[in-house]
Amino acid sequence: MIFGKKMKIVMVPASEVQLTTVEYDLGEFKAPRLTGLSLKLSATFISSPFIGPLITSYFRKQNNIDQMLRDTVIPEPPMFKPEFLPPQEQEVGVVNLEEDEKPEDRVELASRCLPHHDPASIPNSESTCFRYWKIRDYAYAYRSGLTTPSMVAERVISAVEGCKNITPLLVSFDPEEVRKQAAASTKRFGEGNPLSILDGIFMAVKDDIDCYPHPSKGGTTWLHDVRPVKKDAVSVSRLRSCGVVFVGKTNMHELGMGDTGLNPHHGTPRNPHDPQRYTGGSSSGSAAIVASGICPAALGSDAGGSIRIPASLCGVVGLKTTYGRTDTRGTLCGPGTVEVIGPIASSVDDVMLIYAAMLGSSPADKITLRQPIPCLPNLSSNGSSTASFPLRLGKYTKWFDDVNSPDISGVCGQVLTSLSEMHGCEIVEIAIPELQQMRIAHVVSYGCESLCSLMPEIQNRKFQKLALDSQINLALTQSFTASDYVAAQRLRRRLMYYHMEIFKKVDVIVTPSTGMTAPPIHPTALESGESDLEVTGNLMKFCVTANVLGFPAISVPVGYDKQGLPIGLQLIGRPWCEATILRLAASIEQQWNVPKKPAIYFDVTNGK
Amino acid sequence: MIFGKKMKIVMVPASEVQLTTVEYDLGEFKAPRLTGLSLKLSATFISSPFIGPLITSYFRKQNNIDQMLRDTVIPEPPMFKPEFLPPQEQEVGVVNLEEDEKPEDRVELASRCLPHHDPASIPNSESTCFRYWKIRDYAYAYRSGLTTPSMVAERVISAVEGCKNITPLLVSFDPEEVRKQAAASTKRFGEGNPLSILDGIFMAVKDDIDCYPHPSKGGTTWLHDVRPVKKDAVSVSRLRSCGVVFVGKTNMHELGMGDTGLNPHHGTPRNPHDPQRYTGGSSSGSAAIVASGICPAALGSDAGGSIRIPASLCGVVGLKTTYGRTDTRGTLCGPGTVEVIGPIASSVDDVMLIYAAMLGSSPADKITLRQPIPCLPNLSSNGSSTASFPLRLGKYTKWFDDVNSPDISGVCGQVLTSLSEMHGCEIVEIAIPELQQMRIAHVVSYGCESLCSLMPEIQNRKFQKLALDSQINLALTQSFTASDYVAAQRLRRRLMYYHMEIFKKVDVIVTPSTGMTAPPIHPTALESGESDLEVTGNLMKFCVTANVLGFPAISVPVGYDKQGLPIGLQLIGRPWCEATILRLAASIEQQWNVPKKPAIYFDVTNGK
Repeated sequence: MIFGKKMKIVMVPASEVQLTTVEYDLGEFKAPRLTGLSLKLSATFISSPFIGPLITSYFRKQNNIDQMLRDTVIPEPPMFKPEFLPPQEQEVGVVNLEEDEKPEDRVELASRCLPHHDPASIPNSESTCFRYWKIRDYAYAYRSGLTTPSMVAERVISAVEGCKNITPLLVSFDPEEVRKQAAASTKRFGEGNPLSILDGIFMAVKDDIDCYPHPSKGGTTWLHDVRPVKKDAVSVSRLRSCGVVFVGKTNMHELGMGDTGLNPHHGTPRNPHDPQRYTGGSSSGSAAIVASGICPAALGSDAGGSIRIPASLCGVVGLKTTYGRTDTRGTLCGPGTVEVIGPIASSVDDVMLIYAAMLGSSPADKITLRQPIPCLPNLSSNGSSTASFPLRLGKYTKWFDDVNSPDISGVCGQVLTSLSEMHGCEIVEIAIPELQQMRIAHVVSYGCESLCSLMPEIQNRKFQKLALDSQINLALTQSFTASDYVAAQRLRRRLMYYHMEIFKKVDVIVTPSTGMTAPPIHPTALESGESDLEVTGNLMKFCVTANVLGFPAISVPVGYDKQGLPIGLQLIGRPWCEATILRLAASIEQQWNVPKKPAIYFDVTNGK
Repeated sequence: MIFGKKMKIVMVPASEVQLTTVEYDLGEFKAPRLTGLSLKLSATFISSPFIGPLITSYFRKQNNIDQMLRDTVIPEPPMFKPEFLPPQEQEVGVVNLEEDEKPEDRVELASRCLPHHDPASIPNSESTCFRYWKIRDYAYAYRSGLTTPSMVAERVISAVEGCKNITPLLVSFDPEEVRKQAAASTKRFGEGNPLSILDGIFMAVKDDIDCYPHPSKGGTTWLHDVRPVKKDAVSVSRLRSCGVVFVGKTNMHELGMGDTGLNPHHGTPRNPHDPQRYTGGSSSGSAAIVASGICPAALGSDAGGSIRIPASLCGVVGLKTTYGRTDTRGTLCGPGTVEVIGPIASSVDDVMLIYAAMLGSSPADKITLRQPIPCLPNLSSNGSSTASFPLRLGKYTKWFDDVNSPDISGVCGQVLTSLSEMHGCEIVEIAIPELQQMRIAHVVSYGCESLCSLMPEIQNRKFQKLALDSQINLALTQSFTASDYVAAQRLRRRLMYYHMEIFKKVDVIVTPSTGMTAPPIHPTALESGESDLEVTGNLMKFCVTANVLGFPAISVPVGYDKQGLPIGLQLIGRPWCEATILRLAASIEQQWNVPKKPAIYFDVTNGK
């Protein structure tokens, strides 16, 4: 339908779209890879008052953004935040966790959901095979007097200090502060009064989540100057009340605006499986510190895969919670409608324990979201962990296979086959319309909400203090109008409709976590930065659905590619159904044997 | 706090603002009055690619918009739609109306909430005093054989046709269509089977609400070409199932983007109380057709006072419902987070009947809003209509008195005094912070949501087909960024906090409906259009709170100024508490004696 010069597109209502006739349409971001001089010039031009608008307009047109947001009639009203009713049926074989209960009590309940812990399985330095120490290994060791939090603290401190020149995992670290927390924990154990199974457990916190007395820089050089930290974020304080010892703040991609982990200000963390490669991001340091064996768990935030991407690339487990399930007060995700915080750990068990301690929604979310009681799968020998199997697993094969190496689709595909054979899971072929619109809804929503938070600072000469790739991303974001934002939210409601239809037929949507394994770090990137939207697109390819629509999703390691780099599988659950994906992830983990020892690995408990 | 060149403002969290120390800060929009050549030049320049941005930027700065949205740290997360929990206590002395019930049954229940109807009170052409015929007057007349819908139809048709050169009330009108509906209703009465008390009741519908087979032009000349009407809006279809006869589509301020009712395309409706004055808008024709005595009720929509302003200026009753209480499917308010539809009628009784028939929220709202059961005050002699008196009425005196004539604050103040004396209502002095931010949150939210709906058309040369004042408004709206939009939603959450605190101390907030009575129509405006933000600001001064925060509000006539122009009082209720404000409005109406006969008045039932 043509009016005047422009093509007008009229979308049919989502409810009239035939899901069976959908064509795969994700495509790729169109933009040149920029580094060195090209990056510097682009950053200069894109923020200039006259040429800038021409460049951003060209980019938007090249990527169909103007077409989808300005030239299209979208019949749905906007959905500004993920909106969903509670699930109609409760998940089976689960244990309920009350939000109002004390975190310590929830963790206790969660630990009873786990299979029996066998101390003989705790790895020692003589182990021929490699395995990470888990939370319950530490808990047993503290209770049986094998070690103390203070002894572990010394090894953590020396590991962090020993590696900081190779891989800058932490951006804020105070050995005395760590010793003080560990001593308090050691004292509690000495008195026979540990606070919970998490007492004395070492955790690191992403630099966009407040952890007093550390500053929150969000990967920048200046944010802590304008936003002083006065207390813990709500989630951190819940973990602290369980006795967690906080090691420090982990490195991240600046402002969460990229997914490689490249950070020109604080250095770029290295992938423990290959120091010449990225960890993935933006929760780069959190995933790397867990995969390096320094902490059993860390907190990350996820606005577009920022927990799942680095977890996948580093071979650990990362959980993005349902939108509203955790409380983002005291984090830089405050205003977001796509971002949540969640745990990264070396095992599904540990993810469950941290999740149980930190969950609980904010007062604002309690008004709008009708979240059902959170629950965990009962994996204990008494529990009915397999009661709800066989699950129906949705696979969109064209999307699943759209990866840059057959190793990824191959390994992930084998997992599905074995789930089908061993657990009787049914693999259901699905099709998901408008994945390109999903990407655009994500870019606009996340970018604009971040920009709004930074606005007064960005107005005040802080722009030039950002990394060049952040400058380019923000300049692009500044070119989105309020009307673009509202149009993106209209797309969001369509996408929710499609997924709710799909979730009538499947229990979980399964994809690879990323479209590529850990990308190599170009030496020029370390010096002058890098903007590579092809890599960005490949890493985020499967992640943004859970952010745009608020679904829970987990990345669980399932194997290695031919270069020995970890491959992750992503499980996307129905809203609020963390228990279902945790249960499935635990089953997958059981089949997944002992992981390879990464190149950068510190056995903190045994001094190596 | 100064960084670089710009002043940065850091707001303290809303919960730390002392409501007792608030200073009144509404101020006025700063922009010149434009008409004739100045309007034409402004419209040309503001849409030009180079000068346009300079003009919009100047306007934003002059009105503190950039300062509030770009230079300020707003600690609250955004609230994109009104968010509130159901009230803690149910209103007393009310009758519940189930949303799922048939509209006919709800109307029946509503009619039993009304005081006894005395046929002797029905006005006739010999009446020395003036009174509008009410719905139950028609209902009695049809049932007792005094007249039939078909007989009334002929008088409605001749009244509409007789006045169309003086006051263009309807923009779509088909006498045959009216006769057909009336004949069907007459037949039902003949067979003794009227559908409800609304059978044969004549209503008009604002031109942004679909009423098949009429087109919906939204006050433009072209919208119906790109958005054909295929069926009734949901609310219209509910009324139709009760037997309502639809007269046609009423004139409106183009796209609801102004509040005088000036419309260069379809002509400007005249105020029935003074044909040289505006009706107010944007539901100009709906208020005027009721005040002219042609229909007992009409539908309007309200995004910034568009029901309450013309109701107040024309001396009739207008109800803005709670956000989400009515269903906007099939209207041009589809994507809005501030707009609702509601009834305009000559009495509170009639507003109650129409409201009872049309209510019921959309499926999307049912997910996010936890709306309690709608209810109506039981005003019948058996009912406990005064059970919940004395109500606590909040009055912010500095705001209340900020009107352009002491007649308005005087008359409205007398009503409060008499409510206090006769009903024991307590007048509680309140203070409301950040009224200027309220206005900005409104301008940005409403403007951008409207723009988004129009976007593909606006891109396609339709811009030049709009009235000049609409062009200026849209050009200003196009200058808002996505980040501005998000920032405006952060202000919205602060404002909600303040009002929820205030509603702990008062049951209703009382203000004049408008800051001025009906403004005069300048002859140049009729010819070439007009943009007068001083008038706009005066008319909307008290209205936008209910839109930004989704509260129910009603305008009820309470007297006249020295020029004989109607004055309205606005009652703003707690979310979902329509019953409370309807009850109070009914009490006020009892004291409000027989209205003056307007200059333009057609006694449709008696042929005059």
